[in-house]
Amino acid sequence: MAKEQLVKKSENISQWYTTLIQLADLADYGPVKGTMIIKPYGYALWEQIQKSLDVHIKQKGVGNAYFPLFIPMSFLEKEASHVEGFSPELAVVTHAGGEKLEEALVVRPTSETIIYDAYSKWIQSWRDLPMMMNQWCNVVRWEKRTMPFMRTSEFLWQEGHTAHATLDEAIEMQNWAMDTYAKVYRQDLAIDGYVGYKSVSERFAGADTTLTFESLMPSGKVLQSCTSHNLGQNFSKVFDISFQNQQGENEFTWQTSWGLSTRSIGALIIAHGDDNGLCLPPKMAPTQVVIVPAKATDLVVAYCKGLFSELTKADIRTEFDDGDNESFGFKLNKWEVKGVPVVIKVGPKEFDNNNLTCRRRDTLTDIVMGRENANNSVKDLLDTIQKDMLISSTKYRDENTRDANNYDEFKQLLDEHKGFIRVYWNDDAEIEKLIKDETKASTRCRIAENVVGTDFYTGKPATEVWLFARSY
Amino acid sequence: MAKEQLVKKSENISQWYTTLIQLADLADYGPVKGTMIIKPYGYALWEQIQKSLDVHIKQKGVGNAYFPLFIPMSFLEKEASHVEGFSPELAVVTHAGGEKLEEALVVRPTSETIIYDAYSKWIQSWRDLPMMMNQWCNVVRWEKRTMPFMRTSEFLWQEGHTAHATLDEAIEMQNWAMDTYAKVYRQDLAIDGYVGYKSVSERFAGADTTLTFESLMPSGKVLQSCTSHNLGQNFSKVFDISFQNQQGENEFTWQTSWGLSTRSIGALIIAHGDDNGLCLPPKMAPTQVVIVPAKATDLVVAYCKGLFSELTKADIRTEFDDGDNESFGFKLNKWEVKGVPVVIKVGPKEFDNNNLTCRRRDTLTDIVMGRENANNSVKDLLDTIQKDMLISSTKYRDENTRDANNYDEFKQLLDEHKGFIRVYWNDDAEIEKLIKDETKASTRCRIAENVVGTDFYTGKPATEVWLFARSY
Repeated sequence: MAKEQLVKKSENISQWYTTLIQLADLADYGPVKGTMIIKPYGYALWEQIQKSLDVHIKQKGVGNAYFPLFIPMSFLEKEASHVEGFSPELAVVTHAGGEKLEEALVVRPTSETIIYDAYSKWIQSWRDLPMMMNQWCNVVRWEKRTMPFMRTSEFLWQEGHTAHATLDEAIEMQNWAMDTYAKVYRQDLAIDGYVGYKSVSERFAGADTTLTFESLMPSGKVLQSCTSHNLGQNFSKVFDISFQNQQGENEFTWQTSWGLSTRSIGALIIAHGDDNGLCLPPKMAPTQVVIVPAKATDLVVAYCKGLFSELTKADIRTEFDDGDNESFGFKLNKWEVKGVPVVIKVGPKEFDNNNLTCRRRDTLTDIVMGRENANNSVKDLLDTIQKDMLISSTKYRDENTRDANNYDEFKQLLDEHKGFIRVYWNDDAEIEKLIKDETKASTRCRIAENVVGTDFYTGKPATEVWLFARSY
Repeated sequence: MAKEQLVKKSENISQWYTTLIQLADLADYGPVKGTMIIKPYGYALWEQIQKSLDVHIKQKGVGNAYFPLFIPMSFLEKEASHVEGFSPELAVVTHAGGEKLEEALVVRPTSETIIYDAYSKWIQSWRDLPMMMNQWCNVVRWEKRTMPFMRTSEFLWQEGHTAHATLDEAIEMQNWAMDTYAKVYRQDLAIDGYVGYKSVSERFAGADTTLTFESLMPSGKVLQSCTSHNLGQNFSKVFDISFQNQQGENEFTWQTSWGLSTRSIGALIIAHGDDNGLCLPPKMAPTQVVIVPAKATDLVVAYCKGLFSELTKADIRTEFDDGDNESFGFKLNKWEVKGVPVVIKVGPKEFDNNNLTCRRRDTLTDIVMGRENANNSVKDLLDTIQKDMLISSTKYRDENTRDANNYDEFKQLLDEHKGFIRVYWNDDAEIEKLIKDETKASTRCRIAENVVGTDFYTGKPATEVWLFARSY
């Protein structure tokens, strides 16, 4: 397949995005509309996220499990708002093993219902609580408008599901999940954002509250990057998940669910990439450092090999690109497109001076460092890049968060700027809809409550602070 | 759910098996017939297999990827024997997003067709070869008779798919995959078996040859434990996967596919378990050692904690079971059911003598060892257990492999013994069917060729050695 030229990110970000995904070998389109193939380089990014997040999940005492892909339609219908929320997006299996099925099966869009049906059998006593499971799996939500990684008919994610004896414990878990996600986004993906609560109309179908991490993308649109739900007793009541407490009385459990998906890779690509290609934060990069010989004399190659072995031993994910088929310039360009954080250029000059020229992918600048203790200096450089990328993400978020005191200001800000608009407002689905219809801006999340202010829309007193933005 | 008592394995192995899966908290039945829920303790076993196998796969240069779950029906129909083989087991999505689909979608039973459709786009030149990808995913094959882990309508597996410039390379890859699987089965799962080729009628639908690892289970039935296929050019011709070779000519690629599934966990359970419960080889055990205080005095608890910290630091997966709610005997029984390789019992006696009493799960014997250098002695003990379990598996295989010179002997052996029957025979689908219809024994694999012998069935000269057995 002929590969397109990368357009400037600032000129046409959506074309830039889809071209880059092909150029960097991250993904391709699947044969069924709205589906995608995640290629090894893209999947390696998902593996990094899995590795990082899975450690946190296990440390919390949540066990990985696997529940079936197919859910009886009747399960979904048990929780009224849940089925209403997911119905339009369902894929349905009607035939299997050469026969028409008695009951149609839904391909899981999320697994609350099938997991909670099992929980109702497994949970009897307070001794069985908390019950905390997670699964890494595929889910299907039939989408009309799709975009690789950002919104596809099938995607990969993890979904955590917990049942607790008390509401407090459930809230603690909901918060833990969002704290953990925010940590992964900030520390690994180097993407900052706002944590807050979704509005009543935007929250998860079946939840009492939904926490979200909302990140501003360079397109000016905001991405809901992951969510964590307090499900209250909504599911435990309809699935009859009850337990005998220590006083011998029966109670319904309090539950949470929380998920982070391959959409995070979309965020990673679009947040950090530039006109030259991908730009990966070191913690996410499958390859952190590539050594490219400028002129492959025997001495230079030996020098590179020594360096390669030293960096590899120091657990830096390093490659030595010693192929003969490609020119030096071609190689530099190739690794730039792939977003490798540091490319070490080594030629006769470096050999003579016993040093290295390190190209930073994030700043596109060269740094010369001594050969001695290269493992430590390169490690320090990777740390610096990781930190700098987060700093610039935080800066971008903050610079693009503006306050509006009234609806006119709000609309003017939307016209003139991209990003978040912060307002005093109290959640009101009707007003929310009016604003969305008129401006295409939606509530992203509530970032404060119990404050004193003036509602930007009604002019009446308001007690909450909300972020609005146009979104993916 | 009330848990059943474990029956004796020798009395009713299939009841023993299904009860043990519940008792050891490995899995439960899903709501849709033939599906299963893999619970955290069972999934942890799958994670061990994944970890071990994934290292080999990555070292070989095979990249993990992810291809869509849904395959257009027309893709499957391209390869005639492939669609014929899988048709009876397909689950079909006919509706999605509230509408009837124009083309029905198959939920992948295996991914050759969707992956090779992509390969045909990605492969142009010899420079693109070999193309080697693997995915860890779920697949669906609608089954009438199911058994947890062994045969379920949905299961988890990895499927590797490679395309090569030459047949030799493809065969090398097919062999590599089977060697790797055999290594994992023997070294990690401590299950021995035979590697050989499937008969023409039993090979994978679309393959030129299929390598298999066949293990004898204590039920006397043999399990096809994983397979590796040389697909020849069967798929490259129908999917038009061609490349320009170094001479500028167009050629079709040579391909392989290979898979190992959660069936391996079924093998693990049934191969090693006994009347007391699971028995896990140390390399597979999520928890390798549990320290149980016999009498939790302050001194004993401190002694246990010191030991726990020492073993954990030595990377031994250790737990300290210091709960107050359960008696010493209850705890020992609990860990026995869960198959933990070593339980260290520590009471005042051990404290006074500065030693430990280690209970080996595989032999149900106690070993007293000094407290000093416990990390090394316990590691050695785990290694010994791992080795002994494989030795006894090999012994079981060998003792239950018998030679038959003619069909009468063959039938007599089947009547009197369980296990493999080794015969001189040449692959012949008609005779194979006659034998299966009469005896329920099927060909497991060909373990030698180019030999000189007398065909056990026809009495004519035969050049191959085959294993027959009754199977799962």
